[in-house]
This record gives sequence, C-alpha cells and structure tokens, in this order.
Amino acid sequence: MSQSKSRGIFVSFEGIDGSGKSTQARMLADRLRMAGHEIIATREPGGSPGAEEIRRLLVEGDPARWSAETELLLFTAARRDHFERTIGPALELGKTVITDRFADSTRVYQGTTRGDLRALVDQLHSMMIKREPDVTFIIDMDPATALRRTKGRDMEESRFEEFGLPFQRKLRDGFRELADQEQNRCILIDGTGTASAVAGRVMSAWDQRYS
Amino acid sequence: MSQSKSRGIFVSFEGIDGSGKSTQARMLADRLRMAGHEIIATREPGGSPGAEEIRRLLVEGDPARWSAETELLLFTAARRDHFERTIGPALELGKTVITDRFADSTRVYQGTTRGDLRALVDQLHSMMIKREPDVTFIIDMDPATALRRTKGRDMEESRFEEFGLPFQRKLRDGFRELADQEQNRCILIDGTGTASAVAGRVMSAWDQRYS
Repeated sequence: MSQSKSRGIFVSFEGIDGSGKSTQARMLADRLRMAGHEIIATREPGGSPGAEEIRRLLVEGDPARWSAETELLLFTAARRDHFERTIGPALELGKTVITDRFADSTRVYQGTTRGDLRALVDQLHSMMIKREPDVTFIIDMDPATALRRTKGRDMEESRFEEFGLPFQRKLRDGFRELADQEQNRCILIDGTGTASAVAGRVMSAWDQRYS
Repeated sequence: MSQSKSRGIFVSFEGIDGSGKSTQARMLADRLRMAGHEIIATREPGGSPGAEEIRRLLVEGDPARWSAETELLLFTAARRDHFERTIGPALELGKTVITDRFADSTRVYQGTTRGDLRALVDQLHSMMIKREPDVTFIIDMDPATALRRTKGRDMEESRFEEFGLPFQRKLRDGFRELADQEQNRCILIDGTGTASAVAGRVMSAWDQRYS
C-alpha cells in the first residue's frame, strides 16, 4: 500500500445517522459521473468482500459481545481490506472514490463512547491504514431532525442508532470538532433543507476545490 | 485489562504443526489438575465465543483472501477477545491457564512469511494485548518427523500445514530463535520420543520452575 498520493481523488462522507450523508454521497457520485469522472462508490464498514465478512461480525448478533478494543481491531481489519482491495486500486487507476464513512466515523464514535481510546484509534490508523481522504464532507444536522429521518428505515443493522438523542448530540459535536481540527481536509456542510439544496452546497464546495 | 501480574499462572505451548504441542498441553493440564490446580485449557486462534467467530474467518474459506496485514489485525482481535473473556478472568481468580498457541505463533508464522512485518506484530501486541505468558513451552521437533505425524489428521482447518517441509524448517528455526531471545519465559523442550517421554521433560522443567 503506497503512502504517496495517487492519481484519483479520495472522497469520504461523514455525519450522524439520518444526516443524509449516504444520499449526498450518491448524489455527488451521480453528478461527477455525468461530468465524466470514473467513480467507485463504496461504504463502511464493508466495501470489499473480506470487509463485508468482517462487517457481519460487527453488525449482526449482540454488538455488546465485543469490547471497544476488539471492535476497534475489527473495524481496522475491515478498513485495511477495504483500502487494499477497493479504494487503493481504484485510486491508482485514476478513479474518483466516494466512500460513505471512513476512519473519521471510528474516531468520532469510539472517541465519544470511549474517549480514553482516541489516541489508540489514531495510532492504529497510522500503523495499519496510513491514508486519509483528500476531502471529507461532514454533513451537519440537528440530531432531533436526523433521528426523525431514521425512523422509517430498516433498523436491523443500525447498531449506532439505538443510543438516542443525547448520544447523537455528542457525536455531532465530535464531527464538528473534527471539522475544526482538520480544516484542510474536512468541509462542514449544512445538512438542513431538501436533498438537492444540500447537494448544491456539496457541489459548490467541490467546485471551489477542484475547478 | 490489567497489565500487572495476576494470581494465576499463564502457560502457553508453541511449536510447529505435528510437534505434539497440543498433546503436551493436555497432558500438563491433566497432571496439574491431579496435583490440585484449577486449570483452564484453551487454544488459539479461538478460545472464547467471539474469538471463535473470528477464527472462522481465518481458517475457513480461501486464506489467500486476506493480506498479511489484515490477517494480523484479525489474529490480534481474536487474541484480545480471548484474553479479555477467557484468560484474564481465569488468572484473576487464581486459576492456571494453559493455552495451545498464543502470540508467539503469530510472531513466528508472520515473521517467517513476512519478515518485514515482525516489528508491527510486536507493536500491535504491546498496544492491544500487553500480557505475555509466564512460561512458554516450545516443543522442538524435526519437521520431517512432525509432518509425518500430521498426515493422519483432519486437514480441513490446517491452513499452515500446507506449506511443506522447507517452510516448516523456517518455522522451527523461528521458534528456536525465539526461545533463545526470551530465555526467562521460553523453555525449549525436545519433542522426540513417546508422548510420555516428552511429558516427563515438560514436567521436570515445570517442577524446576514452580516447586
């Protein structure tokens, strides 16, 4: 796995559940495809056959059977596979990779539930994954609104949604802090309004950066 | 997970496939039980319900689907769970834990196949596992003899056995080097002769250390 920047652009979308990040990831993929980009759209946990196998350990069965540390190792294993098999090869070929969640999700979720592990999260990332996205869109949204949006969905795999509003508020704060710490990479996008209104904000930030 | 030494004795058995280490682990467990020890006998990969789930990813399906790095993360995740759920709690209660393989297997196998990862193996261990066994018996045996012994076994899960004699020779050298580097912890046991002859050697080394 090369540490040097490769030819393609590596994009991630982050945010709390119900923020609309998956929709926004899809809409950016569609727009860039229409503009002639070769796009690989992917998501975490998962995104490669091996990582999907590991994902099943994380999202199926009782999530409480893993400690935070074991879970962190499993997420890192899945991410390593995802990067090696899906993201890295696509970037090498000059494709644009858009992923729904990447390492920031781990930083913010684990950082919120087990703040004492935050340094370990970063240490593992720099040992085993190394690469950050070139640009990360953080879709920012009031958790009360976001939670209402998740209500209609298939909740079977939604292990993070169950913690309720106070937890989602902490996550939102975590993502906002991250955006503040990583200003070169992270762009905070106002997630309120219609999907196309938000997509317009994403696209205009994209154009500012890449046109 | 405490880093301090706990009350029970933590014992591991290591060696190449067919060396007889599993038999010796069982025989030591039996003898110590007869001498009044409370024994937890376990093995890796696996040894706790969660670690057994991870084990299936490692031993079932095409092992070549994992890179060495991803495999290392999965082994470390399984070991973390094994230590947290099985080994650590038993040691805290003053029990003697005997495990068939532990971190040395990863050090020697990964060190032999991907020598460039050896430092990473140690780094991950000290971050995520921390604890070493109090005593490690390395059952040393000529690989040609050991390979003949494995012939009769169910080979379905034997992902390491398939590499053949030259590979097993390198592994043996790796285990011998480790015994040399870790003389306070590792005891090299001559694995030739009958199981009870070898068990006698193990027992006399045990008595020298713990009587």
